[in-house]
Amino acid sequence: GGEGAFIGGVHRMAARLDGRWDLIAGAFQSDAARSAAFGRSLGLAEDRCYGEFHAMAEAESARSDRIDAVSIVTPNHMHVEVAKAFVARGIPVICDKPLATSLADAVALSEAAASAGAPVFVTYNYSGYPMVRQARAMVLAGELGELRIVRAEYAQDWLATELPGNKQASWRGDPARAGPGGALGDIATHAFHLAEFVSGRACMELSAELTTFVTGRRIDDDAQVRLRFEKGAKGAIWASQVATGAANGLKLSVFGDKGGLEWAQETPEELRFTPLAQPTRIHRRGGPGLGADAQYAARLPAGHPEGYLEGFAQLYADIAEQLHARREGRAPDARAMLAPTIEHGVRGVQFIAGAVSSHAGGGVWTPL
Amino acid sequence: GGEGAFIGGVHRMAARLDGRWDLIAGAFQSDAARSAAFGRSLGLAEDRCYGEFHAMAEAESARSDRIDAVSIVTPNHMHVEVAKAFVARGIPVICDKPLATSLADAVALSEAAASAGAPVFVTYNYSGYPMVRQARAMVLAGELGELRIVRAEYAQDWLATELPGNKQASWRGDPARAGPGGALGDIATHAFHLAEFVSGRACMELSAELTTFVTGRRIDDDAQVRLRFEKGAKGAIWASQVATGAANGLKLSVFGDKGGLEWAQETPEELRFTPLAQPTRIHRRGGPGLGADAQYAARLPAGHPEGYLEGFAQLYADIAEQLHARREGRAPDARAMLAPTIEHGVRGVQFIAGAVSSHAGGGVWTPL
Amino acid sequence: GGEGAFIGGVHRMAARLDGRWDLIAGAFQSDAARSAAFGRSLGLAEDRCYGEFHAMAEAESARSDRIDAVSIVTPNHMHVEVAKAFVARGIPVICDKPLATSLADAVALSEAAASAGAPVFVTYNYSGYPMVRQARAMVLAGELGELRIVRAEYAQDWLATELPGNKQASWRGDPARAGPGGALGDIATHAFHLAEFVSGRACMELSAELTTFVTGRRIDDDAQVRLRFEKGAKGAIWASQVATGAANGLKLSVFGDKGGLEWAQETPEELRFTPLAQPTRIHRRGGPGLGADAQYAARLPAGHPEGYLEGFAQLYADIAEQLHARREGRAPDARAMLAPTIEHGVRGVQFIAGAVSSHAGGGVWTPL
Amino acid sequence: GGEGAFIGGVHRMAARLDGRWDLIAGAFQSDAARSAAFGRSLGLAEDRCYGEFHAMAEAESARSDRIDAVSIVTPNHMHVEVAKAFVARGIPVICDKPLATSLADAVALSEAAASAGAPVFVTYNYSGYPMVRQARAMVLAGELGELRIVRAEYAQDWLATELPGNKQASWRGDPARAGPGGALGDIATHAFHLAEFVSGRACMELSAELTTFVTGRRIDDDAQVRLRFEKGAKGAIWASQVATGAANGLKLSVFGDKGGLEWAQETPEELRFTPLAQPTRIHRRGGPGLGADAQYAARLPAGHPEGYLEGFAQLYADIAEQLHARREGRAPDARAMLAPTIEHGVRGVQFIAGAVSSHAGGGVWTPL
Repeated sequence: GGEGAFIGGVHRMAARLDGRWDLIAGAFQSDAARSAAFGRSLGLAEDRCYGEFHAMAEAESARSDRIDAVSIVTPNHMHVEVAKAFVARGIPVICDKPLATSLADAVALSEAAASAGAPVFVTYNYSGYPMVRQARAMVLAGELGELRIVRAEYAQDWLATELPGNKQASWRGDPARAGPGGALGDIATHAFHLAEFVSGRACMELSAELTTFVTGRRIDDDAQVRLRFEKGAKGAIWASQVATGAANGLKLSVFGDKGGLEWAQETPEELRFTPLAQPTRIHRRGGPGLGADAQYAARLPAGHPEGYLEGFAQLYADIAEQLHARREGRAPDARAMLAPTIEHGVRGVQFIAGAVSSHAGGGVWTPL
Repeated sequence: GGEGAFIGGVHRMAARLDGRWDLIAGAFQSDAARSAAFGRSLGLAEDRCYGEFHAMAEAESARSDRIDAVSIVTPNHMHVEVAKAFVARGIPVICDKPLATSLADAVALSEAAASAGAPVFVTYNYSGYPMVRQARAMVLAGELGELRIVRAEYAQDWLATELPGNKQASWRGDPARAGPGGALGDIATHAFHLAEFVSGRACMELSAELTTFVTGRRIDDDAQVRLRFEKGAKGAIWASQVATGAANGLKLSVFGDKGGLEWAQETPEELRFTPLAQPTRIHRRGGPGLGADAQYAARLPAGHPEGYLEGFAQLYADIAEQLHARREGRAPDARAMLAPTIEHGVRGVQFIAGAVSSHAGGGVWTPL
Repeated sequence: GGEGAFIGGVHRMAARLDGRWDLIAGAFQSDAARSAAFGRSLGLAEDRCYGEFHAMAEAESARSDRIDAVSIVTPNHMHVEVAKAFVARGIPVICDKPLATSLADAVALSEAAASAGAPVFVTYNYSGYPMVRQARAMVLAGELGELRIVRAEYAQDWLATELPGNKQASWRGDPARAGPGGALGDIATHAFHLAEFVSGRACMELSAELTTFVTGRRIDDDAQVRLRFEKGAKGAIWASQVATGAANGLKLSVFGDKGGLEWAQETPEELRFTPLAQPTRIHRRGGPGLGADAQYAARLPAGHPEGYLEGFAQLYADIAEQLHARREGRAPDARAMLAPTIEHGVRGVQFIAGAVSSHAGGGVWTPL
Repeated sequence: GGEGAFIGGVHRMAARLDGRWDLIAGAFQSDAARSAAFGRSLGLAEDRCYGEFHAMAEAESARSDRIDAVSIVTPNHMHVEVAKAFVARGIPVICDKPLATSLADAVALSEAAASAGAPVFVTYNYSGYPMVRQARAMVLAGELGELRIVRAEYAQDWLATELPGNKQASWRGDPARAGPGGALGDIATHAFHLAEFVSGRACMELSAELTTFVTGRRIDDDAQVRLRFEKGAKGAIWASQVATGAANGLKLSVFGDKGGLEWAQETPEELRFTPLAQPTRIHRRGGPGLGADAQYAARLPAGHPEGYLEGFAQLYADIAEQLHARREGRAPDARAMLAPTIEHGVRGVQFIAGAVSSHAGGGVWTPL
């Protein structure tokens, strides 16, 4: 993630926050001089700045003070190639989502990682929020009873117009770099991960309708997806990047026969829980009545807002614990095992592929 | 609407609020004695209480001080029969929704009303809220630009369990009395009316998935419907009566290429409007910046909450103005013309029938 | 309350809503012809429209079909004189707040009413809200433990500028008609009533600072008042009519050693209750977990918003029950006994007088 | 801030977040071995861990790779002594609030810092929030017109009971370590800083009432303070640590004759602005319509919540820029000049001393 990239800076702040990671090497740009200049601005040594990821993988894997893991924050189409270069040399990978631009690529990477024994994590970062983990724990503990409905929406508006010249918009609108999904791959896949993560239920099939509202755009900027989960639960995802007025409106609601939950990313500190025929309760991060997972993932007392970076940082903290434990030959802290792995990454690509296929068939129900 | 009925009491309070209607006659129960007893408790004269609607239609139409209109607040399956009895005698009808349990019945009533020249109104009461009318006016004035997305949801939880013995639940769960739609007919039809009312766009086709979550229930308690509107706008309705924790969660959002709107029935005083790339503005009932329709439909200054009854009352006030104007041979106040008529009632039945048909076909796109 | 008056129309709608009152007589204007014209527009008989309240009191008290009660909705300075005319003839009075423009007048009326045996009610209407009554019941039941803090604020902005020519602003800014308090008498007195009503504690002394921000205004438009209650509880009221952006922002919070409550008039359907060291619970009007008083004062199921008129109407319903019971020689329904009486009216005038006196003394603590 | 301390960990995370500070030395405990152990756990070199701050000041100032600044995160009574040790050696200080436990101490430190030429910053961290800075900029730009009212409240409940054995509660309840103010010094001082920071007006005098609600507590746990600002503006602060149900409820509202602003720390991303007689606008961090200060202080796009740590980190980023500029002999970025300095620290101590004095005099108006 070079200068001016959005998600690269996020990864760096998130990694730094808990003091468990230092950035010591990187390939920031294909131009080696610019990569080195940017690396130096981040405090890196000259010889740890690379212009090309193959060179980096090779050089780093040869060092005794080699990196503990590499974060991949490129446009989607490069994820798999870069990841393969590092896993092949046994270097753990932290990869942005979606994992790949095709299911075949995702599966190939999964196999490569398995055979190399190198862990791959995928930054479905919203699962790092403490109250999302609390929601998951409550569902698993049966506090909602038998699940009936899982709904997620993810509304943005930053692509409501064409944005010529915008770097972020440019690659996200290009199927060659973004993959076959627009809003689908960029944001609906987050919603899908949350839906399975919190519900603990696998989605068995889906029906999708994709729309491109902005003239000239080549991939969807709006996706409506119906979901059917195991054991009869139903669901829906709506993701849009043209919902004028929305910023980063990811919301999740889960309803069972004994209770319901609601959570919204823009007010992430609260989780609303309504037991059947009782008043709604507001569970607050850092507040009373929370389980071990939510407590583990928090830094501050209630009322001192944590946000996006803290949730993202939790994945880095979890991964640090897992890699430490691996090195030390011990079992990791169980509460650190919620960071999404390559299985979730592959699952996300299945979702994208399934939705594209369903839409191509007029919204036909498509197994996942 | 006899003793203990929900919507009958609502109609009476709504009609009274603005002082333009008096209740002077009624058929409240099939048992004439009980009907008379209930009528007396409401202050009616003995000879204006009827045990049977045909008798009422006949007797009232023969009086010089006959009723100005009749409100029909029975279970759905009786709407058309009762309405026909009154329109046949030229008495205007105010009918609860859905208008009928079949499209054929709805159309037949429409024709009967047209040939009798008796107006029929349908209480899609949520269109009486001032901020809903403000939303409609803003859309029509182009403040949102070209419409792209219209979304409505209507979540309740009162049918999350079986409710044996509950009178309201009993007829609503009985296809013979409720018609073919459960949540579909009871609440989704409200959401559909709002979607067309506010957007000013006709829905051209829909795709529906209906679910019955509660064991033993005979009609749907959850409905997901995709909508395609004129000129390329897309939409969705979700209606559920098993969304544990939801009370009467009707929400509407509309997004265009120049702005977006959000409104929620449980906080009806606010309308959120975000012009593209500008801060969100909170328009408030009674507050600055509202158009003629919203001002006309309000009674109190901003900050003095109006609610469900006031919105419902607006339909009665509108209808009073229309009937007065009719009698006086003048044009009614244009702002009173937003009360839903039989055309909207027929449209709602089309929606129900279309959704049932689409669902039966596995979610096939079905023209409306 | 003649044509164009605010609170007169509110009283009429509130009285009508529950069907327990009919408006049958009135003195609407000092000009008899205009009073009659306005009365006719409200459906009154010619001979029940009066130009002058003495005439009305005399004529009505002489009729066999005399009025059951009279509502006084004049500017403040006329309350006592009008009320005396009716109570002297045994006609119950429903009087707007504040009861009087001086404590001496309020006490005199109280004595007159007592000796005539005519009940006087004062429309501190916010105590009619179901969730306010729920708050009171929870405090009285000890759910908050020992009370520590009672805070109320009442922020408006409609007097942020001078408003020359505005009828409502004109008399409210005139000490001769409004009395010695501006924001103090118009709105702080509501907050004070709520504070004592919900806490069940008497305020023992107060310290006030009054401010007039708008140039040329003759009475306060902003009041800060510290309160000391029985048994060591402390409190504060802030009332302002120049809080730019506020509409009718009456809020109340009560904190005890076992729990805390928060309520806001603009979102009156919710009462937030936090038991010590537990998640906050949202109690909703019409929802589960409410006591008898809140249930009694509600008309609709949860999620169907009731508002200002319904809360106001509750006082009229309560008073109807009390007057009926009186006539029938039975004890009224205990739940109807929460309507504010002349004692509360006198108390409100004590508050105003005490605050004016404290302010004159530089904020000196003044016993109530 | 040793192991288990709250604010020490906050400073470390905040300093790390933007990558402009490394922790390289520290005196964490008076026990040298435990200090070293804790330092090592934070990645410090052995010889940079000290058991005593004098030793640290001496040793660090003698090194060529000396620290750039020291953060003081001890209980209040040690702030001045520690700060003096460092400023005497020319080492910049970042000190927690309140700066001192007496005004004399605060002034003495201020003089010592001035004569040594060492900058001292005070972490009134809430002024680091982007939307607080936006509020300040809007007030200064005249968007609210002439200011009338400035209100702040800061409600917590963590001291609603005695908390025997709680380390944080223990020193905060001890006048010898906390100073003369309880809630006053711990939280009201934050509210006071915000009030002057955002309004740009100096408070000229105050009237305070302090209460200790919890039996056995030796200093106030609740403070009500009236404020009079320059040019006729009035204000109020309420701070409580026994407001059951409140977490960290710092709120600020400012009203002028042309507009009003509202901000709440627990939802820090939004700033509500209502221009006189216009709809309320929601300004969002990262969103459209913000000024340079708010943009400078943000890291993420709108809708990706920033929170407490990011606001705190902003002070560290600002200070880094100031110290860099100082070293480089250039003017610092003007937008980095909002970090509170020793003047604000002294001002906060004046506020505490003034409030204690006013309260002792029965709430007498006391000049600041």
